[in-house]
Formats: sequence, C-alpha cells, structure tokens
Amino acid sequence: MKKPPKRRPDPPSKLELRNPHAVHAAIRARPQDVIEVRVRPEDAAPAWKRVVAAAGEAGVRVRPPEPPAKGKRPPREGRNTAASALVKPKAELPLAELLALDGCVWLLLEHVQDPHNVGAILRTAGFFGVAGVLLTKDQSASVTAVACDTAAGGAEAVPVTTVTNVSRTLDAARDAGLWVLGTSEHAEQPLSSVSADRKWLAVLGNEESGLRRLTKEKCDVLVGVPGGGPVGSLNVGVAAGIVLHALSPT
Amino acid sequence: MKKPPKRRPDPPSKLELRNPHAVHAAIRARPQDVIEVRVRPEDAAPAWKRVVAAAGEAGVRVRPPEPPAKGKRPPREGRNTAASALVKPKAELPLAELLALDGCVWLLLEHVQDPHNVGAILRTAGFFGVAGVLLTKDQSASVTAVACDTAAGGAEAVPVTTVTNVSRTLDAARDAGLWVLGTSEHAEQPLSSVSADRKWLAVLGNEESGLRRLTKEKCDVLVGVPGGGPVGSLNVGVAAGIVLHALSPT
Repeated sequence: MKKPPKRRPDPPSKLELRNPHAVHAAIRARPQDVIEVRVRPEDAAPAWKRVVAAAGEAGVRVRPPEPPAKGKRPPREGRNTAASALVKPKAELPLAELLALDGCVWLLLEHVQDPHNVGAILRTAGFFGVAGVLLTKDQSASVTAVACDTAAGGAEAVPVTTVTNVSRTLDAARDAGLWVLGTSEHAEQPLSSVSADRKWLAVLGNEESGLRRLTKEKCDVLVGVPGGGPVGSLNVGVAAGIVLHALSPT
Repeated sequence: MKKPPKRRPDPPSKLELRNPHAVHAAIRARPQDVIEVRVRPEDAAPAWKRVVAAAGEAGVRVRPPEPPAKGKRPPREGRNTAASALVKPKAELPLAELLALDGCVWLLLEHVQDPHNVGAILRTAGFFGVAGVLLTKDQSASVTAVACDTAAGGAEAVPVTTVTNVSRTLDAARDAGLWVLGTSEHAEQPLSSVSADRKWLAVLGNEESGLRRLTKEKCDVLVGVPGGGPVGSLNVGVAAGIVLHALSPT
C-alpha cells in the first residue's frame, strides 16, 4: 500500500520569533502584522533595544516576556534570553504575480525539509535580491518561526509562493519567460558554464535525495558544482549561495 | 579597563557525536579514536546501521545508549534518538606541516564563534578538497561535537590547525608560497576578479564584525561578494562556499 504523502499541517496563525534582526525586519516591512514584542527594554541587548525603538515608532505594543513555564528555568538575570515577538505569517503572492515581478533570478525549493535550510536560503536570496522564492507544499518546510529567525530578516525581503505541482509550476515559469536551471550532484555540466545572461529559475532539491527524476527531466539545463574533495555533497543552503552568486549580475 | 580576551576552555578529551554521518567518517578515518558507539542496532535508522557495520569491521565497541537522565523523557519507542558515539578530538597538524600540504586552497577563520558555522565550513571545505583549515584560538569556536555533527564527516576530511596570532600566521603562509585573500562586505573589488590561478589562503571573519582591521591590511587582495538585495550580509558559511567555489579549479 502506498503511503499517503506527508502534508504539512496548516500554517500557524502567528509565529514566535526570537531573532531580533528578524523581528526588526518584520516591524519595518509590515508593522500591522506584528502583534507584540515581548522584551524588558531595561535589560535588553542592543539588537533588542533597536527592536524596541522601531516598535515605538511603528506603534507596536511592547510588554515583558511571559514568565517561564513551570519546571523550566528562568533566564539568568540581565540576560534577555526570553525576548521574542509574536508575528503573523507573511501573506504569500499568487504564482502568476510572483513570476511577473521584476528581477533576474527566482528560486524553487523542491522538498527542502529543514526549516534552518529554508531560512538560510531566504537570507541568501534577500542578499542577492532574488525576485521570488517558490516552496513546495508537501514534504517541505514552510516559512516557520525557525526559518524566519534563521533568515535574519531575509523572510521579509523576498516574496514567497507555495506551489503544489512542480511540473505545472515549471511550465508556468517558462511561459513567464524564465529559463529553468536544475541542480544535481550527478550533473556533468558545471555551474560555471551558465551565466547571468537571462532570467533564471534555479531549482534545488531535497537535502538527502536532491531533485526528483521528473523535475530534472523538465529543466532546460542541469548543472552541478564540481567538488573534488572527499565529502560527497554540499549543504543545500551553501549550494543555493553558490548558484545565486553565479546567476546574479555583478 | 581592558577586558581580558575570552580564551576558550581546554578542549574536552572526548566528543559525543550524534550525527551518524560524522560518526561513520570518524570510524573510517581513525577507528582508534572512536571509544564506543551507543546505539541499539535492532531499532537503528539506516544511517546508524551503516555505522554499526563499520564499527564491526573496525573493531569498535557498540553498546546500548545510556538511560535518559532523571527528569528527561526517554526517546519514543523504535526511534533511536539517543544514539551517539564517543570520539576523541582529532589531532591537529603543526602550522608548518599544514601549509606544506599539497593543495590549491587553504582557509583561515578569524574569530568565527558559532560551532554550527565552523562545522558547515568544514563540510564545504571537505567537498572542495581544501588543503587545510586554520582556526583562531581566542574568541572562536573550536571543532566541538556540534561542529563535527554539522560537518557531517567534513571534520575528518580536512586537516585543522589552531593558531594564536593571525598576523604571524599570514606571514608564515606567505613564506610558504600562499597568497592571502581577505573577504569583507565593504571591499570594492568583487570576488569574481580573482581566479584559481595560484595557491590561495582565503580569510573569513567574525559573524558580526568581519575581519579585524589589522588582518585586512595584511591581505594581498581584499574582495567582497556583491549582493544587490535588501539583506546586508551573507552568513559566513554561505560566504565560505561562494569563495571556495570561486578559488577551486574546475
């Protein structure tokens, strides 16, 4: 019997962010979605003080953190380890709108499962000015609180769309004038053979298994990053950085 | 009053590794340093079964994990979340030997403080076949258990040396025939202006503050990775991947 696909649960209605850089970016980008900041301004670290100032300017409520749950140790005095903010998830763009944005590079993550990787990639995408990031719905991490914290503001900087069917998404991307660049550790063509000469949609696959066979077959070009060392593969977040650097106009 | 420099504590005499890929690599590279593997073979995940097989071949002891500490919940039945291995830290090479190794690229991490970043960089270094990685002693993460787990075997693949004085280390590198490439987000020269045409020592700095001014002044070339997006900086592990890709012969 075939196992049903692992659907991810419905996204939560609010995320508890703990990275002050992520919170600051959310307050700047969409203060109406920031429910409250939980910090004691008097013993906040400099990055949280900056959050408190931005919250004040934007009219976002600041209150002390919740007391620690029973059985958990409270944070040490003077250390604001319990500081956080409650933020609504960012609204996604419809696929057609995301593909119609002005830009040079889009990114599709197929079944990337670790929210740390999704977050790291959002930060890198924000650094390189990626036009949009597409995530798959099933067997994939979404833009969770961990992803937002890891992205350190990158989740606010890049429009995101979640797609259910990769094959149809690649068709839509091609219809929108994008070229599809797949990545695979087994590809013979090196990444250095392509350049920032057109609009690219770069597709990166699952941490263990890479891109699915059908997805690879639908790419216009399939490239790999040549290694040469004893370790067989790159972390997907590092691979994303190398690919985006190669595809971004300098 | 000047604060004394944060010296890292003496390295522990053994590391408890939890990533089966890291444990497998240690058994293959230096079985004499693997004290024991703690796993129940009958309910081990495939990656741990591979560890058990390698341990059997290498004569490394395998025994069940310790019972969970009082007050901690035991792992769920059938899930080998408590699996680990006790491994001695890998011996380091003297600086002169590390610089005399055969290779094209060396890496120096100046005050990189997060062991996840050190581990991610060791994995990437192992992928690109970096000749050696130099770590600073003070205000820096060492090759901890977290770093080894994150490196997923990369810590076994790359020789490491810890240095105390960066300035003298750069002199020694130059004496050994290496060119020193510094990285800075404020550098005007782009990374793409250098290539794999000589032996490079790439130098990456602290997560927040980058390279120290004195270190930047001692580099032969100082380059940056041009971004263009709203996020101001790259994670140091991603930056390392981009730099190593640019400097590695294809």
